[in-house]
Amino acid sequence: MENEAKPWVFRGTQKFTTKQYSNDSKQMITIREAQEELMGNLNQDDERSFVHLDHGDPSAYPCFRTTPLAEDAIVSALRSAQFNYYPPAAGILPARRAIAEYVSRDLPYKLSPDDVYVTAGGHQSIEIIITALARSGVNILLPRPGYPQYEARAAFSHLEVRHFDLIPEKGWEVDLDAVEALADENTVAIVIINPGNPSGNVFSYQHLKKVAETARKLGMFVIADEVYSHIVFGNKPFIPMGEFGSIVPVLTIGSISKRWIVPGWRLGWIVTNDPCGLLKQTGILDSIRNYVNLSSDPVTFIQGAIPEILGNTEEDFFSNIVRTIKEDADICCSKIKEIPCIVCPQQPEGAMSVMVKLNLSLLEGINDDMDFCVKLVKEESVIVLPGTTVGMKNWIRITFAIEPAILAEGLDRIKSFYQRHAKKL
Amino acid sequence: MENEAKPWVFRGTQKFTTKQYSNDSKQMITIREAQEELMGNLNQDDERSFVHLDHGDPSAYPCFRTTPLAEDAIVSALRSAQFNYYPPAAGILPARRAIAEYVSRDLPYKLSPDDVYVTAGGHQSIEIIITALARSGVNILLPRPGYPQYEARAAFSHLEVRHFDLIPEKGWEVDLDAVEALADENTVAIVIINPGNPSGNVFSYQHLKKVAETARKLGMFVIADEVYSHIVFGNKPFIPMGEFGSIVPVLTIGSISKRWIVPGWRLGWIVTNDPCGLLKQTGILDSIRNYVNLSSDPVTFIQGAIPEILGNTEEDFFSNIVRTIKEDADICCSKIKEIPCIVCPQQPEGAMSVMVKLNLSLLEGINDDMDFCVKLVKEESVIVLPGTTVGMKNWIRITFAIEPAILAEGLDRIKSFYQRHAKKL
Repeated sequence: MENEAKPWVFRGTQKFTTKQYSNDSKQMITIREAQEELMGNLNQDDERSFVHLDHGDPSAYPCFRTTPLAEDAIVSALRSAQFNYYPPAAGILPARRAIAEYVSRDLPYKLSPDDVYVTAGGHQSIEIIITALARSGVNILLPRPGYPQYEARAAFSHLEVRHFDLIPEKGWEVDLDAVEALADENTVAIVIINPGNPSGNVFSYQHLKKVAETARKLGMFVIADEVYSHIVFGNKPFIPMGEFGSIVPVLTIGSISKRWIVPGWRLGWIVTNDPCGLLKQTGILDSIRNYVNLSSDPVTFIQGAIPEILGNTEEDFFSNIVRTIKEDADICCSKIKEIPCIVCPQQPEGAMSVMVKLNLSLLEGINDDMDFCVKLVKEESVIVLPGTTVGMKNWIRITFAIEPAILAEGLDRIKSFYQRHAKKL
Repeated sequence: MENEAKPWVFRGTQKFTTKQYSNDSKQMITIREAQEELMGNLNQDDERSFVHLDHGDPSAYPCFRTTPLAEDAIVSALRSAQFNYYPPAAGILPARRAIAEYVSRDLPYKLSPDDVYVTAGGHQSIEIIITALARSGVNILLPRPGYPQYEARAAFSHLEVRHFDLIPEKGWEVDLDAVEALADENTVAIVIINPGNPSGNVFSYQHLKKVAETARKLGMFVIADEVYSHIVFGNKPFIPMGEFGSIVPVLTIGSISKRWIVPGWRLGWIVTNDPCGLLKQTGILDSIRNYVNLSSDPVTFIQGAIPEILGNTEEDFFSNIVRTIKEDADICCSKIKEIPCIVCPQQPEGAMSVMVKLNLSLLEGINDDMDFCVKLVKEESVIVLPGTTVGMKNWIRITFAIEPAILAEGLDRIKSFYQRHAKKL
């Protein structure tokens, strides 16, 4: 046979095995990669059920089931057969209008549908903004700790990033002096995540205003990641960064994933908060539109359900979800106090996770955060995220938004793990 | 007020207004951009309804409504509340298994779920493959005419493309001599679209085998775009390129968009047809996996419906859809014969569109294909796609898969347009 005589020899092998884009320039591993690595260490002989304290997705737990209203809205849009077509790039008008109205509820001015791009969730919102900003020489400022999808996308697009610290002792507020020191004439934007992922902090009105004024002074705009908007349970209300849109233009990232507990529905948005119309001249919006034209679209019938979902979801649903998350946060904080090797500098007030500092000096034979996480998953079938993935070595991110009883069980297992590995004094 | 005294001055303006990525390197405008430009010419005073002969999306017409089985499958997956979570990067296992089984039905070997990546539709499949291949110095071969999303994504990723012709006089077969002449040591893949978009051709078993043998000889693999698979209505059956997977590795792009008439559901796949396991060593699969980890995911509950949709859709639904499209193709061809300025070199045998050659010498005051399309939309409220967008100047792409009566009306208007603009002899 001719085919067997001469095997297929791929011309590109050298190029593809010696150089892979994602290893070239990536500074942090993604959460997904860390999870995959950790899951590879799972002990298959452990008969206890596995406890996920590693991602902001409580959708699998009955107490976090989304509202029937949202499901009904999807079914109704689907059954209408009016939303089977390819959607326009920026999203269908009824969805854009509904998102503009929903976001405007918390703002001192009204957004228009033209301020809205419907996206396939928060991840795609990040993809679009980072890609639109990627230019030779340009840089953006990212928080540390933060959400590593920003770093991963920026590395992929060769966009330079610079990190400023959030200060644990000050409730994870932005180190504004560091921001001023980092910014130069090529800095175009600063990313703020509020309510905070991974720290569970909520920024005050005054602090957000200072961020806006700093950004204005430095000639950059603000990217406000508000996918956890309204998930607050401390003393501070949720204030959207768009509140300060007349001080500085803001691009807000939002999503139904967290508040409606449906991350698998892949529906989010980018909103331009720019009441003074300053972004028009910058070229940023053209750049966003260009990439939106090229990228994947969110599902049309889910867009068709958005007016009903955003417009009519019962307050009770929201308050029940937030109440359960608060209960989780309380369990989390009290259980953490029983585990001397992890210290929580700041009680979470929002979102779904908390950062705790690892005290390695209290542990025997644990080298660092990754080592802690690998051994924990092996011995206790509990997965938490090493701080390294979010920019903070020897910290741990614990996501607490799950069924409260399971959360308690998971934290008890971390306590057992500590007791077994505690340094003998 | 301090804010009013010192306006926000964006540092990046010069960078973003003087250089936009998509204008840097783009060789062709996307279909979406052409449509937008043409729609801008619509005469709002024309009271006749607008006729779309410009895209492969007949979902708006009642005769092309998808099967209730598909809608029921979505509702059932949604109502189960089992699919609200973030999906894994490659897709959920039941969906990957169902896609492997569905594609295997037409193959001489069985695919495994590990051969499948679930995507957010054909566009995202293209995005993933092109991005995974983009390396400095590498090039790929694309058909002319073709589907401009390949060119747009390649330009965005700085992947070099080279065009080979499809030969209208030979039923739009690949010019294999041109392929051999174009390929060099940096050529890693060739794209084949079958059934053909935009030409409506269907490749024979013998021709596909020759393509496979040529690719094998040249040391590249084949990217087979089969989003129109099984939509054939001429004498040739649909043969998947994977049939020749033991001659040369094939990456197949598929989707439910066309066969189930649900492009808005955004669900597709990439399948590796590689029974000899040759791709493993090339680094290509790692590169795909890396990018899949970074990119947006298809909706989880739609993935949850895929086993039912792919496994149990009634043959009657498929045959009715294909019968209607064949009726459309027949109307299209007979009406085209009444319009001397457009000539169809090859009766369509599959997919949803046909390429016709514009005879400008028969027309008065029409400069080129774009001019023809602009004036047509202005005067007759009919939109067809200028051939320039698919790589062929002074050709026209007519998409015929719409309600037959509306198609006839649209073509009659093109005939009137011709009669009004015909050169007086």
